Amino acid sequence: MRPNDCLDPPAPIRVAMLGCGTVGSEVLRLLTEHAGELASRIGAPIEVVGIAVRRPHKHPQVPSELLTTDATLLVNRTDVDVVLEVIGGIDPVRGLLLDALKSGKGVVTANKALLAEDGAALAEAADASGADLYYEAAVAGAIPLLRPLRESLAGDRILRIAGIVNGTTNYILSAMAEAGAGYAEALDQATQLGYAEADPSADVDGFDAQAKAAILASLAFHTRVVATDVYCEGISAVTSADIAAAESLGCVVKLLAICERVPTVDGSPGEAVSARVYPAMIPAGHPLASVDGAYNAVFVEAESAGQLMFYGQGAGGAPTASAILGDLVSVCRNKVAGGHGPRDYVHANLAVQPMGHTPTRYHISLDADDRTGVLATIAGVFAQHDVGIATVRQDMDPAETGHGARLVIVTHTAPDAALAATVASLAELDEVLGIDRVLRVENLGRPVTALGVA
Amino acid sequence: MRPNDCLDPPAPIRVAMLGCGTVGSEVLRLLTEHAGELASRIGAPIEVVGIAVRRPHKHPQVPSELLTTDATLLVNRTDVDVVLEVIGGIDPVRGLLLDALKSGKGVVTANKALLAEDGAALAEAADASGADLYYEAAVAGAIPLLRPLRESLAGDRILRIAGIVNGTTNYILSAMAEAGAGYAEALDQATQLGYAEADPSADVDGFDAQAKAAILASLAFHTRVVATDVYCEGISAVTSADIAAAESLGCVVKLLAICERVPTVDGSPGEAVSARVYPAMIPAGHPLASVDGAYNAVFVEAESAGQLMFYGQGAGGAPTASAILGDLVSVCRNKVAGGHGPRDYVHANLAVQPMGHTPTRYHISLDADDRTGVLATIAGVFAQHDVGIATVRQDMDPAETGHGARLVIVTHTAPDAALAATVASLAELDEVLGIDRVLRVENLGRPVTALGVA
Repeated sequence: MRPNDCLDPPAPIRVAMLGCGTVGSEVLRLLTEHAGELASRIGAPIEVVGIAVRRPHKHPQVPSELLTTDATLLVNRTDVDVVLEVIGGIDPVRGLLLDALKSGKGVVTANKALLAEDGAALAEAADASGADLYYEAAVAGAIPLLRPLRESLAGDRILRIAGIVNGTTNYILSAMAEAGAGYAEALDQATQLGYAEADPSADVDGFDAQAKAAILASLAFHTRVVATDVYCEGISAVTSADIAAAESLGCVVKLLAICERVPTVDGSPGEAVSARVYPAMIPAGHPLASVDGAYNAVFVEAESAGQLMFYGQGAGGAPTASAILGDLVSVCRNKVAGGHGPRDYVHANLAVQPMGHTPTRYHISLDADDRTGVLATIAGVFAQHDVGIATVRQDMDPAETGHGARLVIVTHTAPDAALAATVASLAELDEVLGIDRVLRVENLGRPVTALGVA
Repeated sequence: MRPNDCLDPPAPIRVAMLGCGTVGSEVLRLLTEHAGELASRIGAPIEVVGIAVRRPHKHPQVPSELLTTDATLLVNRTDVDVVLEVIGGIDPVRGLLLDALKSGKGVVTANKALLAEDGAALAEAADASGADLYYEAAVAGAIPLLRPLRESLAGDRILRIAGIVNGTTNYILSAMAEAGAGYAEALDQATQLGYAEADPSADVDGFDAQAKAAILASLAFHTRVVATDVYCEGISAVTSADIAAAESLGCVVKLLAICERVPTVDGSPGEAVSARVYPAMIPAGHPLASVDGAYNAVFVEAESAGQLMFYGQGAGGAPTASAILGDLVSVCRNKVAGGHGPRDYVHANLAVQPMGHTPTRYHISLDADDRTGVLATIAGVFAQHDVGIATVRQDMDPAETGHGARLVIVTHTAPDAALAATVASLAELDEVLGIDRVLRVENLGRPVTALGVA
C-alpha cells in the first residue's frame, strides 16, 4: 500500500532497537531527521517503540519513555514488527534475535561475530517463521556488498572474493608503506586517530576479518562457513622490510580476506571452499592495491560478470548507519507488501578446505652462505616438497646481512602445507643462515609482471 | 516453497525471451548449463517456453519449437510468467513490455533507450498490476549498481553520482592518454578491437551515457528524468593536446555521466536535479581516474555512506548476461514467494535543472597578445560575468603559438551559462588571438592540488 492509495494513513512499522551507541544514535538521528522521506520510500512511517540499553541515564538525548533495560521484554512485545540490533557480541544477543525471528519479527543486525558463529541458527529461525534477516552492515560498513552477492549475482557463479575488509589494519599497512613507519609506530598513529581500539587485537590479529570472511564465503558459495573454518593470520608480524621487499617486486602488502571455490582435495567430483585471512603481497597495478587508509574494498570474480570491485568506507557511525537503514527500509517494505526478502541458501553445502591443502604462493627471503652449490641444495629442498620455483633473485648484501648472500624466491602455486614444510626444511639447512621473511603472494587473476609470474 | 518442502516438484517459472543475439544466446546457454543451481536458488526450475526472433533460420542452436516470429503472441500467452527482453530499441519493444506488465508478467530488460525515454509508463504499468520490472543490465553491464542504489542506499540520501558508463569512449580516452594517440587513431583502434561499432555515434557522441544518466538520476533522486533532460556532449572534440594539458594539471580526461542534487535556481526551498554528460578533467588521484580501457566505474556520494565506488565490466555478452540472470532470479523468487520486488519511487518529483544554471568549473586555454594590460582586460571579462578565477598560468610559448602568450585559466565554480558567456566574450576580444581549448573540471569532492583549487 502506498501513502496516497487510501484516506487512512498506513499503520506505522514499529521498530525496537537493541543498543544505542555510536551507530545506534546515528540511526536514531537519521530516522527522525529523514522520517518523511523514509516513509515515502517504504509506504508507511517508521516508529521506534523502544530502545534497550544497559544504562538509561547515559542517553539523555533519547526520550526517556523509549528507554528500557529489559531487552527480552522489548523484543517479545507483540506490537514490535522489526528488531534492530546494534549491541554486538554473541550473548545475550543470540537469544534475543532468535526470539525475535521465531515470532516472525524482522531483524536487522550488524553483528558479524554472531553471524560468523551462529548465522545458521538465525537463518533457520528466519526461514521457519518467514521473517526477514538482513545484515549488510556486518561486512564492509557502508559498501553495498552482501545484497549484490546475494541478489545481483544470484544468476552467476562467484569464483573468488578478495577483500580489504578491516580499515584499522589497512590504515596501519598504508601508513607503513607511505611513511616507511614501523608496525608499532603505525599502530600508535592509528590508535591516536581513533582508527584502532585501545585493545587492537580483534583488528590486528585478523579476527574481525575472519568473521567477515566466514559471512562472505557463506553467502557467495551457498554454504555454511563459520569463523573457526577460516584460517587466520594478522598483521603484527609484518615489518617495514616486508613492505619494502614487496615494493621492490612491484607489489604492496594488504591484509586480505579471501574466499575461493577450489577443487576438492582428493580430486573427487565437485568443489570445495577455501576461506582465509592473511597479509599478502598483491600486484601494485591491481585495483585493490590503491585502496589506502581506512577505506575498504572488495574484489569479486564471477564466471560471467568477470572482475568487479566495491569500494567505500568500512566503518564509522554514519556509514554503518547507512547500511543499517538500507536494510531497515527493505524489511519495512517487505512488511508493507506482506512478503519477505530473499533467503540465505546453503543448498550447495560445500566442504571447507583445510589451509594446508589450499594452493597458495610464497615469497621467501633468506640469507645463505655464499658458496658454490648452495643454490643447488636450496633448490633441491623445493623439489623435494614438489614446490616449483617461479623466480629467484640473488643479492650480494654483506653490509646488511653481515655474511653470505640474500636470496629472494617466489614459488609457483602449491599446497600451503608443502610450502610451509619447504620453509621448515630450508631453516634446517646448515647453508641457510636465516629465513628473513615469508609472505604469501596473491596475484588475484593478474600477471605479477615484476615477478615474472603470470 | 523450497524444493525439499514437499514431494511434488514445484511448478516451473515460464520465461518468454524477446531476442536472441549475443546477450540472449549467452543467457540461454547459462540457463541450460546452470539449470540445477538456478532452480535451487529460486526454489523452482526456470523453463524457457518461447523465443521471439526476426529470422528463425539464423538460430540453428536453438530448438526450433521454441522459436517464433510473433513476439506479440508470445508475450500474451497466458502460460508465460516472465518476459526477458534483449532486442533493444524503442518500438516495438515498448508495446510488448507494456502488454506483459499490464497482464502481471514480470519483465527483465537491458533496454536503456526505452527506459530513458519511457521508463515512467513501464513503471506505472508494473505498479498497477503488481508486476516486477528489473533492468540492472541497462546501466554499467555486470556491475551491481541499480540494486544498490534502489535498495542498499534506500535509507540514505544520495548526493552525487559520477560514472564512467561507456566502455567505448573510455577505451578511446585511455588509448589517447597512454599511447598519446589522436582521437581518430584511437577510435580506429577501438573499432578494430570490437570496442566501437561501425557507426560509433551512439557512444562517442555521448547518447549511450545520456540514457544511462537519465536512468541513474531517476533512481537516485526518486524523480523522473528522461534522456532529453540530460545535457550531453561527446568526446569527438577531445584532442591529444587536451589530454596533455590535463596531465600537466595533475588530471585525466574522462567522459562522465554526472547526476547531482543541486540547490534550486531561484534559491527557493527544496532541491533540483542536475544530470549531464561531458568529457571532464578529474584529479589523477581520484579512484575514477585509474579506470582504464573498456571498464566502467561509478562513483557515488551519499550523505551517510560517504564515497562509494562500483567497478567492473560495462558491456559484453557474458557480463550483461550475469546482470540479466541476477534480475531473472529475483523476479522468479518473487513469483515463487508470491510477492514483488521494490518499486521505483518518484515521490520526490524534483525539477531537472537546465545546464545553463548548473554550477561547473572551466579550464580555458587561450592565446593572447603579449602586451601590458592584456591580463587585466581578460580578467575584467571574467569579473563582468561574475566568474571567479582560481588559477592562471602564463606560458611564453612563441614556438608553438607563433605570437604572444598562452594563458591557462581554471575558474571557480559558476553557472555553466556564465562560463560559456565568458568564453564567448573572450573570443571577441582583439587581444585574444584564439581560444585553444575549453574543458570542464570536476574535482568530485577531492582537492585538485595541482590546480591549487580546493
